[in-house]
Amino acid sequence: MFLGCNSFMVKVVIAGSCGLDDIESKAGKVENVLGGSAIYASLSASHFCKPGLISAYGDDFSSKYLEMLKTKGIDLTGFQEVDGPTFHWKGSYVDDINDAKTLQTDLNSLLKFKPVVPEEYKDAKFVLFGNTDPEQQLEMLKQFDSPEFVVADTMNFWIDTKKEKVLELIEKTDLVLMNNFEASLVYGTHNLLEAADKLLENKKFALIKKGEHGALLFSKNSTFSAPGYPVRTVKDPTGAGDTFAGAFLGYLSNQSEINESNLRKAIIYGSAAASLNVEDFSVNTLFNSSIEKIESRVNEFRKLVEF
Amino acid sequence: MFLGCNSFMVKVVIAGSCGLDDIESKAGKVENVLGGSAIYASLSASHFCKPGLISAYGDDFSSKYLEMLKTKGIDLTGFQEVDGPTFHWKGSYVDDINDAKTLQTDLNSLLKFKPVVPEEYKDAKFVLFGNTDPEQQLEMLKQFDSPEFVVADTMNFWIDTKKEKVLELIEKTDLVLMNNFEASLVYGTHNLLEAADKLLENKKFALIKKGEHGALLFSKNSTFSAPGYPVRTVKDPTGAGDTFAGAFLGYLSNQSEINESNLRKAIIYGSAAASLNVEDFSVNTLFNSSIEKIESRVNEFRKLVEF
Repeated sequence: MFLGCNSFMVKVVIAGSCGLDDIESKAGKVENVLGGSAIYASLSASHFCKPGLISAYGDDFSSKYLEMLKTKGIDLTGFQEVDGPTFHWKGSYVDDINDAKTLQTDLNSLLKFKPVVPEEYKDAKFVLFGNTDPEQQLEMLKQFDSPEFVVADTMNFWIDTKKEKVLELIEKTDLVLMNNFEASLVYGTHNLLEAADKLLENKKFALIKKGEHGALLFSKNSTFSAPGYPVRTVKDPTGAGDTFAGAFLGYLSNQSEINESNLRKAIIYGSAAASLNVEDFSVNTLFNSSIEKIESRVNEFRKLVEF
Repeated sequence: MFLGCNSFMVKVVIAGSCGLDDIESKAGKVENVLGGSAIYASLSASHFCKPGLISAYGDDFSSKYLEMLKTKGIDLTGFQEVDGPTFHWKGSYVDDINDAKTLQTDLNSLLKFKPVVPEEYKDAKFVLFGNTDPEQQLEMLKQFDSPEFVVADTMNFWIDTKKEKVLELIEKTDLVLMNNFEASLVYGTHNLLEAADKLLENKKFALIKKGEHGALLFSKNSTFSAPGYPVRTVKDPTGAGDTFAGAFLGYLSNQSEINESNLRKAIIYGSAAASLNVEDFSVNTLFNSSIEKIESRVNEFRKLVEF
C-alpha cells in the first residue's frame, strides 16, 4: 500500500550507512544483523513510498538482505557494492537500555562509500541524509536538482568537531534532526525555546527531539509537543532515530503540502514507527510491520494525549 | 468564582510548610518572600475551592501575608502561630534553573508545628499533604474521618531514609506524588512502566511526574501523557510541584467523580497553574492569577498536543 505515492519514480531518497551489527541487551544477543542509518530509515519510509537508497555494502553482505530490501519496495540503484567487508558495529545496551556502549567499530565499506547521487535520483523531491560527516551531506545535497524538503541527521561529534559545517547544513536544509543536548551544544543554551528561536531565524519550522520524552516542533507562532510512547519492553533501541526520520519523511512525501498540521502528523507517524521498532532487535519489526500496524500505533498516540 | 464549591465547608485541606524564602535566579533576587509547600498549594487550590490550611508560622510573619491568604479565600483555622521566627529557606537557581542550590535552611517554626487536624477539617473530602516526614503525614491522615481522595507529596530524602514509611503512605493514600527518579528509587527500576505496575498493584491510578517533560498517568488499561509546557522564561521554579498539586486537587474537588477522564484534566489544570507560577518569583503569579488565566493556559495545552 503506497498511499498515493507513484511507485514508478523515486520521489524520496535516503542516504546514509549500511552495516552489519552485533547487538546485546538484557533481552538477548544478535550477530551480523542488518543495520545502519539508511537501512533503518529506508525500511521505515517504505511503508509510505518507494525510497531510493544511497549507501554501500561489502562483499560479505548476505544476498538475503538485498532480497529483504527489494521485497519492501526499496529502489537499490544507489546501493553500491564495494570490495572488502561491510561496515560493522558491535554495541551493548546491557548496562543502560537508553545508552549504547560501543564495543567495536570497523568502518570497512563506509570508507569506500562514494557520496554520488545517481542520475535517476537527482529530481527527488524528498531527501534524507542519515547522520554522517556534514561535509559529505553538503556534498551530496549539491547533486540534487531542486528537492522540496531536505532533512539531515547529525550528532554531537560533528557539532564538536565541525560546527561551522553543521551550521551550514542547518542553513541549507529544511530540517536538521537534533535532540535537546545537540541543540544546546549548537546554540550554547539549555533553554530549548532560545535554541528554537535561533533555528527559526531562517526557517519556518524547528524540531527538537527529546528521546523517550518525545519531540517539540516549533514554528513562529506555535509549539507542538509530541509525546514519547511508553514502550513496555525496549529490546533494542538501535536505529530509533533513523526509523523516526524515515517514517517522518515518508509520511510527508504523500501529503499535498508541507504545513504545520502535516508536520505534526509526520512527527507522530515517525514516533509510532520508532516505538514499534525498538520492540525487537535490528530491523525485525520494520520488516514485519505494515502501514496498518503503524496507523494503529498512531491511534494509541491519540489516546495517550487526550484530555 | 468557586465553580460549585460550597464555600461554607472546608472540603479541601492542605497541610505542609509555610516559610519565608530568599530566592535568586538569573532573573533577579527576592528576600523574605512568602513560600512553603502548603502556601503554594493553597493559593493554587484557591482558584477552585476554599482550602483549609494546616501549617505554622512564626512571630516575624507579616500580617500582610495573612491578609493575602484570606483575600484568596483560604481558611486559616489550622494555620498555627508559634513562638520564634518562621521557617526560612535561602536558595539559588543562578547556576541551573532546574536545580535549586540550598544556601541556608533555618527550620524555626517547622520544628514547633503540631500536626493536629482541627475539628472543623476532619470531615474534609480532599486532603493534600505537602512533602514532609512520612510519619507526620501518616499521623495526620489518621485524624481525618473518611476522606475521598488523599494526595501526599514526598521526595528522595524520605525514600532513602524512611522507605518503609513511604511504602505505607503509598498504600494508605490515593496518590503519592513522585517524579521518575523517585519512583525508580522506590521500586528499583528505571523502567517507568514497571514502577507503574507496582504502584497499580493496589491502586486504580499511578502518577509519575517528569519535571519539564510533563507527567504520566497510568491505570490498568491506559496511559495518559501530559506534556510539559514550554515556558519562555522561568524566573523561579520554587513551589512548582506544590502549585501543581494544589490545582490538581482543587480541580478534582469540583468534579462529581474521580475517574480517569477527570484525573487527566486535573493533571492539565495542575500543570497549567504550575507553568504560570514559574513565570514570576514566589507566589506572585498565583496571587495575581485567576481561574480564567488558568483556563486560558489549559487551552494552550490543548493546542500543544493537537495533531
